[in-house]
Amino acid sequence: MSDNQNNYLVIMAGGVGSRFWPYSSKEKPKQFLDVTNTGETLIQQTVSRFHGLVAPERVYVVTNRQYLNLVQTQLPGVKKDQILLEPKGLNTAPCIAYASYKIYKENPDARLIVTPADHMILKTSIFKNYIKEVLAEIRDNDMLITLGIQPTRPDTGYGYIKLNVSETKGRLYKVERFTEKPDLSHAKLYFKSDDYLWNSGIFIWTAKSIIHAFEKHKPKIHQLFAGVEYSSSNEQTQIDHVYDSCENVSIDYAILENANNVYVRNCAFGWSDLGTWLSLYDVSNKDDNNNVTEGDVRTYDTKNSIIKISNDKLLIVEGLDNHIVVERDNKIIICRKSSEQNLKQFVQNLKDEGYNI
Amino acid sequence: MSDNQNNYLVIMAGGVGSRFWPYSSKEKPKQFLDVTNTGETLIQQTVSRFHGLVAPERVYVVTNRQYLNLVQTQLPGVKKDQILLEPKGLNTAPCIAYASYKIYKENPDARLIVTPADHMILKTSIFKNYIKEVLAEIRDNDMLITLGIQPTRPDTGYGYIKLNVSETKGRLYKVERFTEKPDLSHAKLYFKSDDYLWNSGIFIWTAKSIIHAFEKHKPKIHQLFAGVEYSSSNEQTQIDHVYDSCENVSIDYAILENANNVYVRNCAFGWSDLGTWLSLYDVSNKDDNNNVTEGDVRTYDTKNSIIKISNDKLLIVEGLDNHIVVERDNKIIICRKSSEQNLKQFVQNLKDEGYNI
Repeated sequence: MSDNQNNYLVIMAGGVGSRFWPYSSKEKPKQFLDVTNTGETLIQQTVSRFHGLVAPERVYVVTNRQYLNLVQTQLPGVKKDQILLEPKGLNTAPCIAYASYKIYKENPDARLIVTPADHMILKTSIFKNYIKEVLAEIRDNDMLITLGIQPTRPDTGYGYIKLNVSETKGRLYKVERFTEKPDLSHAKLYFKSDDYLWNSGIFIWTAKSIIHAFEKHKPKIHQLFAGVEYSSSNEQTQIDHVYDSCENVSIDYAILENANNVYVRNCAFGWSDLGTWLSLYDVSNKDDNNNVTEGDVRTYDTKNSIIKISNDKLLIVEGLDNHIVVERDNKIIICRKSSEQNLKQFVQNLKDEGYNI
Repeated sequence: MSDNQNNYLVIMAGGVGSRFWPYSSKEKPKQFLDVTNTGETLIQQTVSRFHGLVAPERVYVVTNRQYLNLVQTQLPGVKKDQILLEPKGLNTAPCIAYASYKIYKENPDARLIVTPADHMILKTSIFKNYIKEVLAEIRDNDMLITLGIQPTRPDTGYGYIKLNVSETKGRLYKVERFTEKPDLSHAKLYFKSDDYLWNSGIFIWTAKSIIHAFEKHKPKIHQLFAGVEYSSSNEQTQIDHVYDSCENVSIDYAILENANNVYVRNCAFGWSDLGTWLSLYDVSNKDDNNNVTEGDVRTYDTKNSIIKISNDKLLIVEGLDNHIVVERDNKIIICRKSSEQNLKQFVQNLKDEGYNI
């Protein structure tokens, strides 16, 4: 097997679209939308950016079974047996375990690039160079590598990684610790310091290394996934049972915060997790009044706003500044950008009333 | 014929709904909407408030032919031959002439109450008393009477009537002159003065008096409408021709500003012409945050706003103050209340682009 043939892409595509409701929804979460108006959905962009690094037959998508059709429609190059169907949405550890054990059985020398399906990366060629460099580092080293992002502002929406600057391996730094989303004063400290990076959630490791880490730090999860007869007619049934018993835990919490072979590469490739309306606004094309619009929208004395409506709607908007106005499927939200953190609760209130959204 | 049998109601219902677009539209103008959420549309309210004063068979509706079905559906008590169909929308003089000449032929002793279809009157029983009083005044007097409204604020959206306080007839004042919509400084002067009333556009006169006035002041219009064979199979064709040649002029300009037998009754019965979103807001029921809402609307930190959406929509709105948010037929407007005078231009801009609205 040549080098390239050991490269596998694992796309985590199980998100359920609650954050951008009604623009995204559980029927069509963010990863399946062209949120930045580029002509490609986020999951399509995710596959495209690995072109030349990972062959189509080694692209794996882990998603909820309800999104099988969406994946097949949007990624016709990904065959059915490369789409791993989760019976329910759990955190990243089970998702990564499923792909890792399955791919390991197929190719014990596999190197995995694990990536969310719904992030944006502006500088693709620079990104690819980082990936190549890191893939080279893990060829002969048992390391778990995460891509860290050089912070460009004191963002409170991201987790941070503290480097151990005295322990390096090539251009990699050993991770001293992971931190949860900080408050603003901590975020400002981290931003000023050279020792903190944003945690991108993009990981690179060999299948062997991550399986070894599961075995060591989460033996229960190891036992569950090691026991599945992958690529047999029993796989889906067994996976469904495994998911019933598997701990619902993130890969960070399950493995990365415990393992002592976790390294980070300090990267800058125009990354956004598109986790908030504000981040989506930041990376979108704007008109002369700094509005981001989608659909048949006419703005008057309106600025700094993000306005997205369906094709069957017509909107005249006057006198808004720094607002979010979004319509999908006849659901409309109007909200100040500064209040977007409240949207989750507003939607929860509807759910509490019995709305199925 | 007893007294009551000479009372006729003429409802002017030709408005095309451009001011409240998209809430009202040329497909369904304001008079056919339940804008105040009372369970009755404005034209239904208009008929209801004359119950006991005018028998159903003497209620006439003048409207554009495209609204025939709407009138028949909403006013099942009004028979087809009481619905006068205009081939095109002209101002009030042709509309009133059509009804007056037709009714005069049926009953030369007819007394006409002429009213717009889309105004709101809160105090119906007080209103009825004014009507009865004025109907008594015109029994034996050749007078053209308009109902004036005691101003409650210096409104620049209404025309005003200046009284001649030295020339009275019972409780009626002779009209000294009509004024167009004033600027704010004039409106304030008028509001302070006791000599100015709002022009409600509700008129009371005998068919004989108004026909005599047309003959004297607009002989061309008289000639056109006097020549129609009413209640014959030729009526509609002849009316269509008459409308082709008739001057497009208001009853105020054609008659009332020229006749010297025009009197006004100083009234107060909770009147609004519902001519602006602000006036609609003023008369509508409000929630604890002074919002007027219609449809499935959830407000957060939102106040003093008017929010109306269709039944198939769901709206979450946060952080608005003094705004208009309206959706109908997938057309949405968001606008500051203070900017509503610009809405007409926004809609015109769409028409200029070729939108058929």
